Amino acid sequence: MQVEAGPLLQQINYPSDLRKLKPSDLEEVCRELRQFIVDIVSVNGGHFAASLGVVELTVALHYVLNTPYDQVIFDVGHQAYGHKILTGRKETFHTNRILGGVSGFPKRSESEYDAFGVGHSSTSISAALGMAVASEYKGEKDRQHVAVIGDGALTGGMAFEALNHAGIEKSNLLVILNDNCMSIDPNVGAMKEYLTSITTSRSYNKFRDDLIAVLAKISKNGPDAYGWAKKLEQSIKGTLLKNANLFESLNFRYFGPVDGHDVTKLAKTIEDLKHIPGPKLLHAVTVKGKGYALAEKDQTTWHAPGLFDKITGEIKKAVLDKPQPPKYQDVFGHTLVELAEANDKIMGITPAMPSGSSLNIMMKAMPDRAFDVGIAEQHAVTFSAGLATQGLIPFCNIYSSFMQRAYDQVIHDVALQKLNVVFCLDRAGVVGADGPTHHGAYDIVYMRCIPNLIVSAPMNEEELRNLMYTAQMPNTGPFVIRYPRGKGVMVDWKRPFVKLEIGKGRKLHDGEEVAILSFGAIGNEVVKAVQTLNEEGIYPAHYDLRFAKPLDEGLLHKVFKKFNKVITVEDGSIMGGVGSAVLEFMADHGYGAKLVRLGIPDEIVEHGEQAELWRICGYDALSIATQVRKLAAGIKTDTMVS
Amino acid sequence: MQVEAGPLLQQINYPSDLRKLKPSDLEEVCRELRQFIVDIVSVNGGHFAASLGVVELTVALHYVLNTPYDQVIFDVGHQAYGHKILTGRKETFHTNRILGGVSGFPKRSESEYDAFGVGHSSTSISAALGMAVASEYKGEKDRQHVAVIGDGALTGGMAFEALNHAGIEKSNLLVILNDNCMSIDPNVGAMKEYLTSITTSRSYNKFRDDLIAVLAKISKNGPDAYGWAKKLEQSIKGTLLKNANLFESLNFRYFGPVDGHDVTKLAKTIEDLKHIPGPKLLHAVTVKGKGYALAEKDQTTWHAPGLFDKITGEIKKAVLDKPQPPKYQDVFGHTLVELAEANDKIMGITPAMPSGSSLNIMMKAMPDRAFDVGIAEQHAVTFSAGLATQGLIPFCNIYSSFMQRAYDQVIHDVALQKLNVVFCLDRAGVVGADGPTHHGAYDIVYMRCIPNLIVSAPMNEEELRNLMYTAQMPNTGPFVIRYPRGKGVMVDWKRPFVKLEIGKGRKLHDGEEVAILSFGAIGNEVVKAVQTLNEEGIYPAHYDLRFAKPLDEGLLHKVFKKFNKVITVEDGSIMGGVGSAVLEFMADHGYGAKLVRLGIPDEIVEHGEQAELWRICGYDALSIATQVRKLAAGIKTDTMVS
Repeated sequence: MQVEAGPLLQQINYPSDLRKLKPSDLEEVCRELRQFIVDIVSVNGGHFAASLGVVELTVALHYVLNTPYDQVIFDVGHQAYGHKILTGRKETFHTNRILGGVSGFPKRSESEYDAFGVGHSSTSISAALGMAVASEYKGEKDRQHVAVIGDGALTGGMAFEALNHAGIEKSNLLVILNDNCMSIDPNVGAMKEYLTSITTSRSYNKFRDDLIAVLAKISKNGPDAYGWAKKLEQSIKGTLLKNANLFESLNFRYFGPVDGHDVTKLAKTIEDLKHIPGPKLLHAVTVKGKGYALAEKDQTTWHAPGLFDKITGEIKKAVLDKPQPPKYQDVFGHTLVELAEANDKIMGITPAMPSGSSLNIMMKAMPDRAFDVGIAEQHAVTFSAGLATQGLIPFCNIYSSFMQRAYDQVIHDVALQKLNVVFCLDRAGVVGADGPTHHGAYDIVYMRCIPNLIVSAPMNEEELRNLMYTAQMPNTGPFVIRYPRGKGVMVDWKRPFVKLEIGKGRKLHDGEEVAILSFGAIGNEVVKAVQTLNEEGIYPAHYDLRFAKPLDEGLLHKVFKKFNKVITVEDGSIMGGVGSAVLEFMADHGYGAKLVRLGIPDEIVEHGEQAELWRICGYDALSIATQVRKLAAGIKTDTMVS
Repeated sequence: MQVEAGPLLQQINYPSDLRKLKPSDLEEVCRELRQFIVDIVSVNGGHFAASLGVVELTVALHYVLNTPYDQVIFDVGHQAYGHKILTGRKETFHTNRILGGVSGFPKRSESEYDAFGVGHSSTSISAALGMAVASEYKGEKDRQHVAVIGDGALTGGMAFEALNHAGIEKSNLLVILNDNCMSIDPNVGAMKEYLTSITTSRSYNKFRDDLIAVLAKISKNGPDAYGWAKKLEQSIKGTLLKNANLFESLNFRYFGPVDGHDVTKLAKTIEDLKHIPGPKLLHAVTVKGKGYALAEKDQTTWHAPGLFDKITGEIKKAVLDKPQPPKYQDVFGHTLVELAEANDKIMGITPAMPSGSSLNIMMKAMPDRAFDVGIAEQHAVTFSAGLATQGLIPFCNIYSSFMQRAYDQVIHDVALQKLNVVFCLDRAGVVGADGPTHHGAYDIVYMRCIPNLIVSAPMNEEELRNLMYTAQMPNTGPFVIRYPRGKGVMVDWKRPFVKLEIGKGRKLHDGEEVAILSFGAIGNEVVKAVQTLNEEGIYPAHYDLRFAKPLDEGLLHKVFKKFNKVITVEDGSIMGGVGSAVLEFMADHGYGAKLVRLGIPDEIVEHGEQAELWRICGYDALSIATQVRKLAAGIKTDTMVS
């Protein structure tokens, strides 16, 4: 749904329009931009509070800088709605996150103003430094490069790696620290406390000024005091000025803290900083959700609230006439507490996703046993490994696409040492509106090649519970459980625990001619396909593999002895996924069946609703039924949809 | 070859023996331990300078702490030889890095004194924090947890993630910063400069003491000065004490810098620190190679010098009667400069491996175009992506197993955006003596599932040159070139460049009955096998695939139309590797040949010489020939050797 912009914003299609305005107009532009974001997100959904928090910063940057020649990278990109609206996408922004519409994140292919594609955290300083070094190499001395990064994203290790490198380059780089004390959940860690101490205590600059004043005073009190003062002044210059601020320790010039909602002052400051060479950091203090009272008050809920009534603030929930299945993440959250109550070895770990993973349930119930370690996937995995060496059983919950950040740690710190860490990969498979940066497309492939790992996926809530129950048994070794974003399929999901045999699948449906092997919750699409086909008189068999590793070889022998037309279905890449594992089994055991692999093809899958993407990729119920019909009829099948 | 220990060291088999000695004996123990390391490494090889640098630290830790109950983690582990010698492995240390012998790195399965397996950098703080948190949870209040980490490893982002988390836990954690200004090559980055500034300027503690003294002095000078002094004192306590040191900014108590070669003082300091709760950091300044003059002087060469005459310091080189092929890394290093001379868009990037990757050749020839970014693989990749957005063509050289650290960045920052970054993966395949942490076993699998990537491997030096030449052509997109550790096969390797067609392999040898498809330099083992077999009257065909992605479908159609017995050979995991890619092709195109996949089996491959490991894994020339004979004779083959 489109919404109307205020009078000034109506005139702004690109930053060049913004730059025609007087500095005194900027506050009004901010007001209108903020209102536009409220209006459009309330009726179309999407990320909310982050963009409200950087309205002034966004306006100031595009007003002062010569974008897109000057380059601004928004870390993560949740906060970039204002940027998109000011850079040619105001009229199309109502298509945000919809199939074929505007992406929810900055994206190079969408606009030249999106200097770098983002989605995952903590990449902006590295990318901006690359751009700055390139500009320096090419002699573009006037070109500005800015990374806008939150204090949450700053906890990600690669941001520190980038600061460490930037501090020895002379390139023209400005890091703007958007300090709002939040990730999606409240930010955690020593760095956050440090930033708070800078902001709430008297500022470093003020302290330094005081010190210099008192030294001047002392030096009037006679030769002895003068000597001391001189000595101290040397120390101050040599040690304190360099080291008193963490960022200055890393060779950045530090400016701030400044009020991130004073657009006039921000514009002036950014203008001044353009003329200061080398790496520099501007510390801007902002309020996530700024200007929308409820969002300021409950920033986690309002990170991405869904649709809401912008006047009353009531978040709209679909009114449904019957009880709904839970989200998989909530099954995880509640089940973990249930297991932990019975097994005191269990611990919970999340890298900055307490609400997204529902580990917040355990954090509330058992605060000494559940850890939010910050945006720090690498550390989360190796910290879990450390816990496991002491006989504990950590459940480390990381979204599938974020686990790509900790791949080495899974191999090097967990699998090589056969430690009992349970990896719960939420958001596995296509995730929907968040799009390509967030699809959990590769985990089956990149996990199943690792020795000692067990790789599993539940088809429903009960299976998720039983896999978790099985994984926490003593000496089970590293255990991966992948499950999708969104709701399950069972209203009555809280069934008693049953221990599963590792590497054993199950038969769901006897059949003839064609067998379907599914892995994980996408098996529910197979169930639907089978129902449809049965009505047509086609009776494929359906097996739930449950484990991609170890494969259920007993089950596979039975299948390939009976069937010579087999389809594998997975919500993951078909280049090396479960289908390929089955091919490997066939090759090793001399089976020659016709095998069709359905899953995510070898291409970038864009954003859209999950069901839309399943259809595009060719593994929703309809597509599966079509493949079965073709196979049953002996027609050549397509394994990939392009 | 075994060597004799000095008189005190002879009595020490375990730390309990060490603890029987008087503090005044420790210097002599250090002397003998250092001599033992010199004696044994000079005749057996291995890592050298790092262990010499921490002799005193190692002795002090085992003397003061109650290891193995107290837990010490050596980051990376190059420096742990002294630790191994003092903890039950003195008599077996001459088998270091040999097949079946002592591992070159700490390893949990080898000794209870090895609290955590290491090899890759920057994991120690995370693991030690996990242990400390577990101890706290279990009520083991007396238990000590120590991470010994170099200033080089501290540049790795996950070390920062761990500091950020540790700073808000109250667990008993001691980080010992082993500050020697070195990685394998000299350490780089702002953090290094910061540490140097702490060490070389008057110390922070001294400064603070001075300041407090002068304040006391001022406050005697009358009420006005007293007021100022009070005010400043508040500031100092509130701001300066907390913030003047980077580690204290992160809630660590900072101690140091101390002389890392004063064993008596170190022992006393560590004893004192045992009684101070919470996270703390001891900054010890050491000299890499300490006590061996040549190593102190040229620390990079003496990181792992090979065999040497301990008296003269002459590093032994095998005397060979004919010219030898170059190392692949040197072909990379020289070729990159050659290409960069002709193409001014080319840049070179290494995360802390200038000498190991031979990027040092370009760093010397073109210092403004080649970057050592520190131990920071994630940043290296996204920094490269940033350069590529500006039209440059970065060659980002990362060892295969270290690339696991930057997997997300390859997907999220390079492949999704189709940027022209060339990834040169050195040390792909089994690497030999460094063992399981360093084998480049998984890259074919984890790379070929990523859309937009080209994945290639040269069979020899000329092919490496041509792949590099091809990769730097405009708009080629992200391009992976993997090549092994060690020497190539061509003495006369510097041939003119030829552009290769992407996705095209080549036929090396016509044949009958059996076809062998190899990927990369392991194809040279196939060549040997074919020679042997030809002498027996067996004539397999041999094809070099060259590209794992895109596959040469034309070549494969020809092969499967002619042959129904096919072997794939790769120096990488067979779970999802090139062999599986060929199986996928077969399934998609309805070919039913018998396919045998040779490669790294689904298990941890230990350390040993490369050729030994190829044999164990079943893909050296001998094993390949055996498989061909079996296939030719129609005998059932094994795809994995266990």
